[in-house]
Amino acid sequence: MKISLIGSGNVATHLATELFKKGNQIFQIYSKTKQNAENLAKKTNAQYIGAINELSNNADLIIISVNDQQVSLISEQIQTINPIIVHTTGSISIDILNKFPNRGVFYPFQTFSKNKPIQFSSIPFLIEANNKYVTDTLISLALTMSNNVQYANSQQRLYLHIAAVMSCNFVNHLYALSSNILSEQNLDFNLLKPLIKETTEKIEQLTPRKAQTGPAVRNDLYTINKHIEILKSKPDIKKIYATLTNNIIKMYGNK
Amino acid sequence: MKISLIGSGNVATHLATELFKKGNQIFQIYSKTKQNAENLAKKTNAQYIGAINELSNNADLIIISVNDQQVSLISEQIQTINPIIVHTTGSISIDILNKFPNRGVFYPFQTFSKNKPIQFSSIPFLIEANNKYVTDTLISLALTMSNNVQYANSQQRLYLHIAAVMSCNFVNHLYALSSNILSEQNLDFNLLKPLIKETTEKIEQLTPRKAQTGPAVRNDLYTINKHIEILKSKPDIKKIYATLTNNIIKMYGNK
Repeated sequence: MKISLIGSGNVATHLATELFKKGNQIFQIYSKTKQNAENLAKKTNAQYIGAINELSNNADLIIISVNDQQVSLISEQIQTINPIIVHTTGSISIDILNKFPNRGVFYPFQTFSKNKPIQFSSIPFLIEANNKYVTDTLISLALTMSNNVQYANSQQRLYLHIAAVMSCNFVNHLYALSSNILSEQNLDFNLLKPLIKETTEKIEQLTPRKAQTGPAVRNDLYTINKHIEILKSKPDIKKIYATLTNNIIKMYGNK
Repeated sequence: MKISLIGSGNVATHLATELFKKGNQIFQIYSKTKQNAENLAKKTNAQYIGAINELSNNADLIIISVNDQQVSLISEQIQTINPIIVHTTGSISIDILNKFPNRGVFYPFQTFSKNKPIQFSSIPFLIEANNKYVTDTLISLALTMSNNVQYANSQQRLYLHIAAVMSCNFVNHLYALSSNILSEQNLDFNLLKPLIKETTEKIEQLTPRKAQTGPAVRNDLYTINKHIEILKSKPDIKKIYATLTNNIIKMYGNK
């Protein structure tokens, strides 16, 4: 396929690189971050364009992969209506692209960091489209990169995004806070890694509900109070500790 | 070694089984949960005893592996002072065992679930002791099960336990909440697994601070407000979302 891209952030970069690797032509790339866009264009044999109105109608597909709050503005500026137009965002409805006759969503459900390569083959792709032609085209394209492609409507995608924020972004933040706590005690963050690994592996065999361990699920107020007491000097962490502990106690109170 | 155990919960069970497998004699087992203790005794060729005062002075080591709030009571009841006495708990000081001439802590830093076998070789063992004889004995014993053994004092262990609660128990709870959210949308929890896996693998290459992604670290208030709005119908999750999001914004505000 002949694919143009708007954006040069983490998602745009990984996606363009992978699509190029799979034999697609990356046609034009636009981004307000000129340097990133030029680098990405170079890497994918694409043409860097300096303005959205230079987008050609000859692309098969235009992928908008920018910050959520910019998708609306960008789609207003696009005048090329021949290609299929998609965005790659979890929390934005397909309706934001209403002016385009062939529109869709192409949502790779994964966390992308600029300097970390990623295996696309297991990334779930969530597809939405306004007609069968677009659905089929996007599913075929996603299947060239991943074995895990399915249709999801805008509401499902929004909740998926919230779940991703909780299971990835918040989880990583808990790692970051833990790392700070250990470092203050002259302990190596590596000590935590077997535990982190096991926590992830456990849910391959047990539901998260059954895998729950720790003071809160045991309603072990003795330990919880000791932790709360020692966290008095770290009010932000104390608040997170109390909020999550209370919620676990509430969830398992009747187990 | 000739090792007696008090307790038959997750930690006691996994530990006794592994110590037995490594050629130690499991000597006596006591637990207030008689059925569990009898099963564990059978599995490890040990003698089940029905009362703490039946503990023999002929053991080399007595391991107290019970709920945190019971360690104090149990140690008061133990009259055998010849063996080394240890507990296995993160949040309790070694001082709780002050009446024993040879005392220590033998803390396997991992999450144990009853029906999930675990590789001991990579589990960090944190050791504390009141003299060199006990230190050397406990380190030698831990090294028969794990390659990852180190000394930690009671304060370090307490903070380690808090970090474990955050990076394991809270993380698993976020998985459980995510699973509920997806299930309400007729989406399979398996969709999240590649993301969860990547989140864990990322911190092998990047610090958690550098690995942070998501709306909060981008200060993407557009998406955050949309999520908060949709979570109005789930006030408990909304509170967790807001607490963690605010803390991420605060941490990265000056990056």
